[in-house]
Amino acid sequence: MQTVLVSCVGKKIPHWFLPHSSKSLRIRPIWSSSIKMAAEDYTFGPYKIHHTEVFYSTHLSYAMVNLRPLLPALDGNGHFSESVYRTSFLHVLVCPKREVKRFVDLTADETSDLWLTAQKVGKQLESYHKASSLTLAIQDGPQAGQTVPHVHIHLIPRKSGDFEKNDEIYDAVGWMDEKEKELKQKLDLDKERKDRTLEEMSQEADEYRKLFV
Amino acid sequence: MQTVLVSCVGKKIPHWFLPHSSKSLRIRPIWSSSIKMAAEDYTFGPYKIHHTEVFYSTHLSYAMVNLRPLLPALDGNGHFSESVYRTSFLHVLVCPKREVKRFVDLTADETSDLWLTAQKVGKQLESYHKASSLTLAIQDGPQAGQTVPHVHIHLIPRKSGDFEKNDEIYDAVGWMDEKEKELKQKLDLDKERKDRTLEEMSQEADEYRKLFV
Repeated sequence: MQTVLVSCVGKKIPHWFLPHSSKSLRIRPIWSSSIKMAAEDYTFGPYKIHHTEVFYSTHLSYAMVNLRPLLPALDGNGHFSESVYRTSFLHVLVCPKREVKRFVDLTADETSDLWLTAQKVGKQLESYHKASSLTLAIQDGPQAGQTVPHVHIHLIPRKSGDFEKNDEIYDAVGWMDEKEKELKQKLDLDKERKDRTLEEMSQEADEYRKLFV
Repeated sequence: MQTVLVSCVGKKIPHWFLPHSSKSLRIRPIWSSSIKMAAEDYTFGPYKIHHTEVFYSTHLSYAMVNLRPLLPALDGNGHFSESVYRTSFLHVLVCPKREVKRFVDLTADETSDLWLTAQKVGKQLESYHKASSLTLAIQDGPQAGQTVPHVHIHLIPRKSGDFEKNDEIYDAVGWMDEKEKELKQKLDLDKERKDRTLEEMSQEADEYRKLFV
């Protein structure tokens, strides 16, 4: 069951392991996709999310995989880290369907549904990835590090030893822009950075979708 | 209205600004308190929470101030930082009344109530502290950094410039035990560390309680 996911986390380092700015999480213009957008697609702030990237939804919320690995897959010394690289695939987002910037702007129904969705998604992904804990967080507003103005829960299954220090997760997850910039500057390889294809993302979402049938 | 809080965040550095292990957040034995525990008190994992530390509650959830400033009030160089020190007072916890270790163990009613409570508390404290964003997070399980085995939301009002790099919050908030240990070792002043008194905490909770009348 895990073959699709495991096949893409080998030792070979793809171009797109490189660090990126969290300010450009979802910059693929929809017209560049070979798959046409449809009525059942979703919005995430100013971005369109293709329905194949979404693996679970309710009438008010949805859960999606990421366009890029959110983690730079580099350890503190700027070297490729397989543990960080693997964990980057576990990070998903849970969002309200309605485009709302701040958590306080959600209705009571939306708030409840969002977190019941996160609870369900967390349970299934933690088990699927044989993890033992979850990091759940909302960066609610720009001063908390929010970069896409649409409420979203970061949900990351955690395992013993996935990070040398537990809280490197917060650094690696793209919440330390300055450090990212330094790394990028140091490596000067930004031009080689490449998004995952929609097909790759759809494959991952397909695997997750089976967990909620 | 803010005099009580402002009076304790002056330039003078109290003994208890010192770093501490997040593993000992709430270690004051209840019998050492001059105020007797009562039926309306709360539990937080193995610890008893005096009702005067709680500033808002529903039938399923409660919000409380902290026994100690969770932030070491030290910058990256181990020097006292007033901005970190000030922010340490903004950090509160929102918990289910029922002692439950993992987020998935909450009932749907508890999950909804917990987050509706966090939403309400966040709105009021953000406004009260003239902040503009919120950090909301659950460390759900030991591998995510959870130290007290009772679900709790960390809620921290955020302001522009409260941390030099946005994500020092995750370091400072006590989620980097190794660094804390290093700092503690370096300073070797652990013996001088002192909890806030229940009276100090009750004063803070009194101020917050007025926001929910």
